[in-house]
Formats: sequence, C-alpha cells, structure tokens
Amino acid sequence: MSRVVVDVMPKPEILDPQGKAVLGALPRLGFSGVADVRQGKRFELEVEGEVTDEVLAEVARMAETLLSNPVIENFTVRVEETAEVQA
Amino acid sequence: MSRVVVDVMPKPEILDPQGKAVLGALPRLGFSGVADVRQGKRFELEVEGEVTDEVLAEVARMAETLLSNPVIENFTVRVEETAEVQA
Repeated sequence: MSRVVVDVMPKPEILDPQGKAVLGALPRLGFSGVADVRQGKRFELEVEGEVTDEVLAEVARMAETLLSNPVIENFTVRVEETAEVQA
Repeated sequence: MSRVVVDVMPKPEILDPQGKAVLGALPRLGFSGVADVRQGKRFELEVEGEVTDEVLAEVARMAETLLSNPVIENFTVRVEETAEVQA
C-alpha cells in the first residue's frame, strides 16, 4: 500500500476568503510576521500496489474530475515516501 | 518572503466523512485501486523574513490554536523551499 497525496489550492488570481479570515485572525490572537495565508485541501489516497506513472496519471484524473474544481483551483499529485508520524 | 506549509489531517482514529464520500464516489466515476481516502486542510503561510526555528515554533502555535482542532486533528509544519509552479 502506498500513499499518494493530492494538494488542491485556490489559483493565485482567485480570492480566498478562508485564507483571508485566517490572516485577519492571526494579529487578534497575538501572532505577527505572516503576510498572507491561503487555504486549500489535502487528500491522502492509499493506493493498492506500487505507484507507477500510470497510477499517478490516474490519480491526476481523479484530482481533475472529483477532488478539485479546475476553474478555480490548482492541484499537485505526489507520492509520500513513508507514512510519517504527524505532530 | 518564505512559505511555510501547515497540513492538518483528521486523526487516524477519527471518522472522516469527507474522505469516505470521496472514496465512495471514485468507483462510480470509473476509478479503481484506491483503498482509502482521507481529506484534510493545507495552509500556505507567507512569512516575512527568514524561517528560523523560532518562526517555525510560532507557526506551530498558530496551527495549534487557530488552524487545527487538536482534539480531532494532527498537523505538520514545514518550510516549502521554492514557490513551485503547480499543475
């Protein structure tokens, strides 16, 4: 079993109200030094078998048709080497 | 200006209805070979100046207090080396 990660982010020219809300909240919470925030989505797909170029192309098609809205979002597909322990 | 990425994912023991909805939709769209999907959030923070350990610790505090719900979500903080062009 391998993990493929799809990151979906709003395109740079698209307004991102969620990111702006986070950016506005940071100073109210006493945080400084952040000039911009953009919020997107992260999908972790557990793929059966080995991750070949064909599998990555198939995941890119999933990202295009289901995981993202290509009009307003960009996506990246990548293999995550190890199931890392998260903080 | 440096980019720090915060990934927020539902904890493994927490149900993820969004991920399950994606998993259920894949075969209906003709996709196969995916055993599980989990959906989380990705934040891209543009940080002023250099990213020191103090800056990363500050971003981890932001992730803990604002970007994630530590009861049900894990997060990771990392520096994104270059502002990569996304597909």
